Amino acid sequence: MSRPRTVAFDAARNTVVLINQLRLPHRFTLFRAKNYRETAKAIANMTVRGAGAIGATAAYGLAQGARAFKGSRLGEFRRHTDLAYKTLRAARPTAVDPVNAMNTVRAAMAASRTVAGRQQLALEAAEQFADEDIAHCRAIGEVGAPLIGRGLRVLTHCNAGALAFVDIGSATAPLYAAHTAGVKFSVFCSETRPRGQGAALTAWELLRAGIEHAIIADGAAGHLMQRGEIDLVITGSDRTLGRTGEVANKIGTYTHAVLAKRHGIPFYVAIPLSTLDWETEHGADIPIEERDDTEVLTAAGPRGPVRTANPGSGARNPAFDITPPELITGIITPKGLFKPRDLWRKRKQLGKGEL
Amino acid sequence: MSRPRTVAFDAARNTVVLINQLRLPHRFTLFRAKNYRETAKAIANMTVRGAGAIGATAAYGLAQGARAFKGSRLGEFRRHTDLAYKTLRAARPTAVDPVNAMNTVRAAMAASRTVAGRQQLALEAAEQFADEDIAHCRAIGEVGAPLIGRGLRVLTHCNAGALAFVDIGSATAPLYAAHTAGVKFSVFCSETRPRGQGAALTAWELLRAGIEHAIIADGAAGHLMQRGEIDLVITGSDRTLGRTGEVANKIGTYTHAVLAKRHGIPFYVAIPLSTLDWETEHGADIPIEERDDTEVLTAAGPRGPVRTANPGSGARNPAFDITPPELITGIITPKGLFKPRDLWRKRKQLGKGEL
Repeated sequence: MSRPRTVAFDAARNTVVLINQLRLPHRFTLFRAKNYRETAKAIANMTVRGAGAIGATAAYGLAQGARAFKGSRLGEFRRHTDLAYKTLRAARPTAVDPVNAMNTVRAAMAASRTVAGRQQLALEAAEQFADEDIAHCRAIGEVGAPLIGRGLRVLTHCNAGALAFVDIGSATAPLYAAHTAGVKFSVFCSETRPRGQGAALTAWELLRAGIEHAIIADGAAGHLMQRGEIDLVITGSDRTLGRTGEVANKIGTYTHAVLAKRHGIPFYVAIPLSTLDWETEHGADIPIEERDDTEVLTAAGPRGPVRTANPGSGARNPAFDITPPELITGIITPKGLFKPRDLWRKRKQLGKGEL
Repeated sequence: MSRPRTVAFDAARNTVVLINQLRLPHRFTLFRAKNYRETAKAIANMTVRGAGAIGATAAYGLAQGARAFKGSRLGEFRRHTDLAYKTLRAARPTAVDPVNAMNTVRAAMAASRTVAGRQQLALEAAEQFADEDIAHCRAIGEVGAPLIGRGLRVLTHCNAGALAFVDIGSATAPLYAAHTAGVKFSVFCSETRPRGQGAALTAWELLRAGIEHAIIADGAAGHLMQRGEIDLVITGSDRTLGRTGEVANKIGTYTHAVLAKRHGIPFYVAIPLSTLDWETEHGADIPIEERDDTEVLTAAGPRGPVRTANPGSGARNPAFDITPPELITGIITPKGLFKPRDLWRKRKQLGKGEL
């Protein structure tokens, strides 16, 4: 694809290099975080967003912090890196990916007894974490690509694309894989109000990749399905329950799934293994974040948000919804394509590290 | 309600007075059309929109044109009013309401043989047309109000409100009637992308009427239904087929209907009789207008539209969808509440003028 990685590291300058998603789709710029505090700020203000992307950013940020340490005293080094860890963790306190990512960097560092050794191991671990994110997304692409037949018209929602990961993405991975293999198909990006990630980010990615696409209002999917203009739906997920096969994802996903079921259209969810939650027992137990109502009352233009709704009126803004397993044709994972209700049994078969 | 009529006539100044819907919800202003050409322009540029509202505006515009004629020669007067008729009709060429409205004014004028007499009859006929629009909407309100029980949480889509008619509206008429009767309830206005009439116009109306409401993204209705937060859905219609009970309405209506059916939530459509199409045999025969894709790629802020979508990406923009009768609990008309599949039989029973 004709664009840099969403998250990268410039080792010579000890700088984290991010696609600045705050400026997309209106301007394509790179943000260079010169120290771990700037990296933490980029996570906090959503310069970078998406589970895989913020995980890799935090891993690089911790390595960046470790490498900035001058000296050879291990105690001071440890205090310095602990501060970096806490600062990066606090940047997105409810997210689990930065913590998991930084824990792998920390664990890797423990193998050396010198500051220089640990600095080197931190960088290697961060690079490995980012490489694995890419490998997982490529595996999702390989598993899902056979579903994307020639001429298919695919609906996707929100952005579970390259911009949400280090590269390639989850929901988009099968699309990129099929495109690379020369398959011609087209994509409907549903706008995904209130934040418009489908119209802004997914469309931005697909245009750069040269994949035919059209943006639609979220309410238009039902009509297009009714007229036989959508053949397959593929979305990402913020959390998928391994016990039940329920899928939490961006608000509007459930609606597309209900419509797809009515029209006999296959509905797939593509996820890395880190999205699987093996603990939570019921979808109803997943807290649904209600975000600030100004998101619904405004829309983001090139110069920032503009008020679109009636001044004085308020809004409700649930950010996610839960799709039950009976509406989901299959879950596309790096380890294979599974029925949502088979995840638990497959986990028992394959073992913990394998799913 | 604490606002003027959507469409009114100032006989002393021979001026059509409209709520300027191009400036809503950001500014509330009246537009005064001083001659029939200005009135036609207001219809064309959507200063006024909505079936009932543009019908009444055209009726007033024709009376306005007739009253502006100086002289007493009937032949000249006829040529003058024919020009006004054609100009007003051309303002919204695909709409049927302005034509029907102006035909009643024309028919009324024929009863006099003098210019002065015809000018007087034209004004009376236009006033009567507007009064009947109000009366029909009030009747819809009376028929539908009993459905709006205390504490109900009602979802509505787009704007089939007071702003789409001379006053009160169709989908909103039962809400206003229940509110006037002292019933406490609340309304979810779904935003209705791409043009946002729910967030802009319906919310504007409800705020002024003092009815509790919250705007939601179109994709959030499914989640709210799943969590038991919506009790009833009520929408308007642009065309309802008397033969089949199929309902054409703003894009997104079908999606709400599918979700309501899944969750056992009653789904009502409120319409004046002029919305009933007794000729078309199948919903699939109704042409679905594809509007300019810039509507989907932008959002309307206080200073006009801003680009929200990825520059370079295109959009599909079907403006309407068709909801089949099996998803509709009832059609609320000025003549009573009917099952969608009973309309044809009722028409035979009641007679042509009565339904």
